[in-house]
Amino acid sequence: MVGGALGSKLIRLGHEVKMGSRTANNEKAVGWAKKNGDHASFGTFADAASFGEVVFNCTAGTVSLAALNSAGASNLKGKVLVDVANPLDFSKGMPPTLSVCNSDSLGEQIQRALPSVKVVKALNTMNCSVMVEPTLVPGKHDVFVCGNDSQAKTTVVNILKSFGWESIVDLGDITAARGTEMVLPMWLRLLGLYQTPHFNFRIAR
Amino acid sequence: MVGGALGSKLIRLGHEVKMGSRTANNEKAVGWAKKNGDHASFGTFADAASFGEVVFNCTAGTVSLAALNSAGASNLKGKVLVDVANPLDFSKGMPPTLSVCNSDSLGEQIQRALPSVKVVKALNTMNCSVMVEPTLVPGKHDVFVCGNDSQAKTTVVNILKSFGWESIVDLGDITAARGTEMVLPMWLRLLGLYQTPHFNFRIAR
Repeated sequence: MVGGALGSKLIRLGHEVKMGSRTANNEKAVGWAKKNGDHASFGTFADAASFGEVVFNCTAGTVSLAALNSAGASNLKGKVLVDVANPLDFSKGMPPTLSVCNSDSLGEQIQRALPSVKVVKALNTMNCSVMVEPTLVPGKHDVFVCGNDSQAKTTVVNILKSFGWESIVDLGDITAARGTEMVLPMWLRLLGLYQTPHFNFRIAR
Repeated sequence: MVGGALGSKLIRLGHEVKMGSRTANNEKAVGWAKKNGDHASFGTFADAASFGEVVFNCTAGTVSLAALNSAGASNLKGKVLVDVANPLDFSKGMPPTLSVCNSDSLGEQIQRALPSVKVVKALNTMNCSVMVEPTLVPGKHDVFVCGNDSQAKTTVVNILKSFGWESIVDLGDITAARGTEMVLPMWLRLLGLYQTPHFNFRIAR
């Protein structure tokens, strides 16, 4: 869902997108590509990693490390990896817990696993419809980015601006992913309260 | 600091406040009482728990259970306990971690330890100056409450309104304390970024 939303938005903005999956002919990826025209294609995680200048990790957080391992460090080397995933563990029932948090985060785990990749955590604190269409939420609201590489963050900030984001908060290095991932329990609670995913965090100041 | 800010605000609003400490004559509590006039007094945790109709837990989160044990379940029985604390553990260096999170929270631990007390988690997601003077942060912003007892939440909501809070979000039962306590790593990161505690969360929708 998240990959489809981001991929379709990127194509509408003129980019080419290859949707990666565990298998080369994932049914949903094939269907997504068909609907999105000539600039859309599909393949394995390795195919997508090799194809992209910028790579988005939109896999389930609990399997992101396995998916990125399958994508291959050599295919990702030196690239900007936008980590959108949250390590939500639904295996112990509802509400989900985080499979990593507090003194570590998924963003940091990915950066450690792939030291030659420029990991930027972003877009993980809102629903995917809001990610690509910030005006779905009225008024001012924020998207957070963090990562160790300034140039990579600038690349991501420019993509976010092209999505329509006006308030982009740079929280610093990748350890800030602890903070943005740990707001998920609050986000899920608010989803239950408002019964719509069309809300977002705003830092008033 | 938090207890002093809340106590002084409550006195300005016409309430009587007894500041509890580990010892009956805590120097800071004595000083606070002197500055706050006839409606201010001090004593042990047990004295304060016995005195209050509504009790605020403003102790450091990692020692809150010990402080409340010292206050005494019989002194707290049936009362509304506003839990303002966060379980921040500074013992492993900076940034602090949470001593409890993810599948549990300090709010829930306190409710389990004191089943006859009506625990309402509130005010733990902002600086104490903002708690008692929401207009320090411009524009709309939110305070969150959660707890198992509806009447107790109404009592707390009315106190928050008297503090000047206009947007009070009821997140449901006490398990929502996981969510509000887990935003602290983000809050601390934002404190570092903005170099002022005069900011707050707003849910845009």
